[in-house]
Amino acid sequence: MQQDKPFEIAGVQYGSRLLVGTGKYRDLDETAAAIEASGAEIVTVAIRRTNIGQNADEPNLLDRISPERYTILPNTAGCYTAEDAVRTCRLARELLDGHDLVKLEVLADQKTLFPHVTETLKAAEQLVADGFKVMVYTSDDPVVARELQEIGCVAVMPLAGLIGTGLGICNPYNLRIILEEARVPVLVDAGVGTASDATIAMELGCDAVLMNTAIAHAGNPVLMASAMRKAIEAGREAYLAGRMPKRQYASASSPLDGTFF
Amino acid sequence: MQQDKPFEIAGVQYGSRLLVGTGKYRDLDETAAAIEASGAEIVTVAIRRTNIGQNADEPNLLDRISPERYTILPNTAGCYTAEDAVRTCRLARELLDGHDLVKLEVLADQKTLFPHVTETLKAAEQLVADGFKVMVYTSDDPVVARELQEIGCVAVMPLAGLIGTGLGICNPYNLRIILEEARVPVLVDAGVGTASDATIAMELGCDAVLMNTAIAHAGNPVLMASAMRKAIEAGREAYLAGRMPKRQYASASSPLDGTFF
Amino acid sequence: MQQDKPFEIAGVQYGSRLLVGTGKYRDLDETAAAIEASGAEIVTVAIRRTNIGQNADEPNLLDRISPERYTILPNTAGCYTAEDAVRTCRLARELLDGHDLVKLEVLADQKTLFPHVTETLKAAEQLVADGFKVMVYTSDDPVVARELQEIGCVAVMPLAGLIGTGLGICNPYNLRIILEEARVPVLVDAGVGTASDATIAMELGCDAVLMNTAIAHAGNPVLMASAMRKAIEAGREAYLAGRMPKRQYASASSPLDGTFF
Amino acid sequence: MQQDKPFEIAGVQYGSRLLVGTGKYRDLDETAAAIEASGAEIVTVAIRRTNIGQNADEPNLLDRISPERYTILPNTAGCYTAEDAVRTCRLARELLDGHDLVKLEVLADQKTLFPHVTETLKAAEQLVADGFKVMVYTSDDPVVARELQEIGCVAVMPLAGLIGTGLGICNPYNLRIILEEARVPVLVDAGVGTASDATIAMELGCDAVLMNTAIAHAGNPVLMASAMRKAIEAGREAYLAGRMPKRQYASASSPLDGTFF
Repeated sequence: MQQDKPFEIAGVQYGSRLLVGTGKYRDLDETAAAIEASGAEIVTVAIRRTNIGQNADEPNLLDRISPERYTILPNTAGCYTAEDAVRTCRLARELLDGHDLVKLEVLADQKTLFPHVTETLKAAEQLVADGFKVMVYTSDDPVVARELQEIGCVAVMPLAGLIGTGLGICNPYNLRIILEEARVPVLVDAGVGTASDATIAMELGCDAVLMNTAIAHAGNPVLMASAMRKAIEAGREAYLAGRMPKRQYASASSPLDGTFF
Repeated sequence: MQQDKPFEIAGVQYGSRLLVGTGKYRDLDETAAAIEASGAEIVTVAIRRTNIGQNADEPNLLDRISPERYTILPNTAGCYTAEDAVRTCRLARELLDGHDLVKLEVLADQKTLFPHVTETLKAAEQLVADGFKVMVYTSDDPVVARELQEIGCVAVMPLAGLIGTGLGICNPYNLRIILEEARVPVLVDAGVGTASDATIAMELGCDAVLMNTAIAHAGNPVLMASAMRKAIEAGREAYLAGRMPKRQYASASSPLDGTFF
Repeated sequence: MQQDKPFEIAGVQYGSRLLVGTGKYRDLDETAAAIEASGAEIVTVAIRRTNIGQNADEPNLLDRISPERYTILPNTAGCYTAEDAVRTCRLARELLDGHDLVKLEVLADQKTLFPHVTETLKAAEQLVADGFKVMVYTSDDPVVARELQEIGCVAVMPLAGLIGTGLGICNPYNLRIILEEARVPVLVDAGVGTASDATIAMELGCDAVLMNTAIAHAGNPVLMASAMRKAIEAGREAYLAGRMPKRQYASASSPLDGTFF
Repeated sequence: MQQDKPFEIAGVQYGSRLLVGTGKYRDLDETAAAIEASGAEIVTVAIRRTNIGQNADEPNLLDRISPERYTILPNTAGCYTAEDAVRTCRLARELLDGHDLVKLEVLADQKTLFPHVTETLKAAEQLVADGFKVMVYTSDDPVVARELQEIGCVAVMPLAGLIGTGLGICNPYNLRIILEEARVPVLVDAGVGTASDATIAMELGCDAVLMNTAIAHAGNPVLMASAMRKAIEAGREAYLAGRMPKRQYASASSPLDGTFF
């Protein structure tokens, strides 16, 4: 059994290990209700697609998801080059009065939405040098994850599956290597499709999970948000409690293995 | 999205969909603390192995797990024939002042602890005729599950994996068939090893889950009991909310499939 | 490494470990060509659905699939009671001049095509008493498989998945228990969907595999039949050769496990 | 059903779609016998670890694995930087009289043996510019695979699992994306542990598979080599034949999905 450590990002401690996005909801009411039900304290916002004050004439997300209550995490969704991503982060910092915590994502193309790791490495280097606290979305390549950590990112966020696919943890082996080597928080970001996927991510030892589509595209987003809140807590507690070994028979003297999958 | 229905066994409604056993704990203190943390309202007791008053000189489980607070569910663990199981249920009814809700299990042998389905069918028939309300442990054979329901069992409890193995849901396809056909509650009983297994069982549409080893043999049973409580709720809510479809790409017009696994 | 033993059914040795059905093909030409390509030596025939001489006016399967070349294995497909199955076997024995090797299958219903294990047990008992050599289709319940063996069946044929589903090996754990306990040949029958499924069945240690839909409903049945022939041989050789252990890292001193799945 | 196309690398056609390594065998006799049994026509050799003439006093692999019979594929195993890999390829070209087909691998560290994708991209660029025909080992990152193809590599060789682990196809989803986008041959390289893994790789549509440990560390390497030969052919034929759809029930009008896993 392990003692729980607080979940800390860039020196701030959080009670919730579930981070959520704001896209794909029917309207701002549903967005707000789902985020409320999720218990999330960190909410990520696609700067290029969301009005957080750029456009004074339209509804401002921050009127519903208040920065006084939530840590707003601007992200660079829609950026396909390091240059675009860096520029977007700077814009966010201006809009948010010097707020320097960002989620970097540089994708390769609109079809797969797969992370572009070389552009991501480049952007991370520039953003860290520029004083940003960078949470970075990446593939499950453990070598790239290690380099992003060495560059100075404050959290590494490998995918479980492609963005928006709901395929769950496609490769637990790679996640396990990333977790073994990590000295900064590791969050699964993308791929979670249902509650058990979130639980499995936490059982593997992830520090937290970020999701959007799994909640927003559920039949009932608010109820799924509640499910995810409990799923994350269940997975964390199971990880800390330490699961029983798998065995072929109850009486077997040697377990089949000691892992979650 | 579906509306939740109350979980009801033999005419009684329960708030918790997690049922727990009492075996394999270090001592009665740990048993009581874990059951408390699990939130369970139905607690199953192996009549052949547990003192619930048969032996006046030894500690009585019911002093710690009070029948006033919990629904005690006597089970026939350790019975390998229909005859033994029926006799054990009658003994339990006497010990518990006419209490007629029982969990029937007839196992085939001590090595695999696999259910003996023909003896189980025979015992179920006798017990139902004898006025018992029978929750019945069985394999995941959908035909046997159907027959047990037709005999008049009040709940059908297929295994997810062998007792004490922690292998999780070994065959979701069979469970799905059982669930499609069932008109009485279906509970997964046996095989759950960690929180995500319980969540998956509930996402498949099971009405509840019964477990013992996964909690009692966790590194920290009390914390795992709490994890399981949340895992069950998460799975139920996810099932009701309706998960997003799985897709190969976010933009794909047709989902990969619509199932939980 | 293990030495191969000949595959023997009821005292006859066979070179091929692939058994095939004759249903679902476009015409008898395709049937004959696919069976030829499969290398099978035992061919199963649904007595209730196939003309092997009952009807003198229609094409006779045995004119294409000659009993001089192939061991014809009459099966009881379409039987839903022990009585029907026994009657069908007797009819087959008459039609085939005293041929007493049969494949018994008693299904529960037309929707799931799941084996009805209690009726199967009953029919097996009668057929063995009646002098038949019974190869028996059953679920993957290891206790039922054991009883069928004790009754005197010459081969036990658990499903990998439901008939006609192509879902592959749905529960390798149960198959493993059956294989550990068996003293007669164990054949996977039903569920194989593609070549790798057949290979996996053989790697688990099965003696042979019986299939029909996976070949007949492939895009190109004759080519799939050839694929299956090689897949079966590949799986058998891999089983005998003994696979490398699974490891998390190449350099790990202890393997993850020593099993095929 | 699809027609087979010849497997072609850098303008040369090969009959076998199985490529093998030469490491980890007990002695050169076993190496030669296993390669013979595998049917491979392309044999990869770790230039840094294998004597192909660098050392006149020791046994020369090429005396047993003749370049007249086999296409020798020098590889850069043991290189951890682009610079080392490029130097090693040049050394190989000298040793092999101008032979310019190489297998590039740049690994990140000795523990995971994971590919270092940024160094791999750098080395590939230099080698292509220097006139080499580069078959390139890489992760299953589809974006990196695409870039390696655009650089001019003649084949892209994603891992199925980490080198030497035998874990099989850890992430079929990523392989599928690579296969959909590829215009050069895609070979699974690393991770195959047993025959069915190789079959699955081919069923996914891979052009070929390269392996070493799965054969060399089997209980009987020569028999496993034969198994792999058949497994590769079985998988290719199944891919071309087109598998039946997966269904929950045989009678279901809509299949569960149309994929191999």
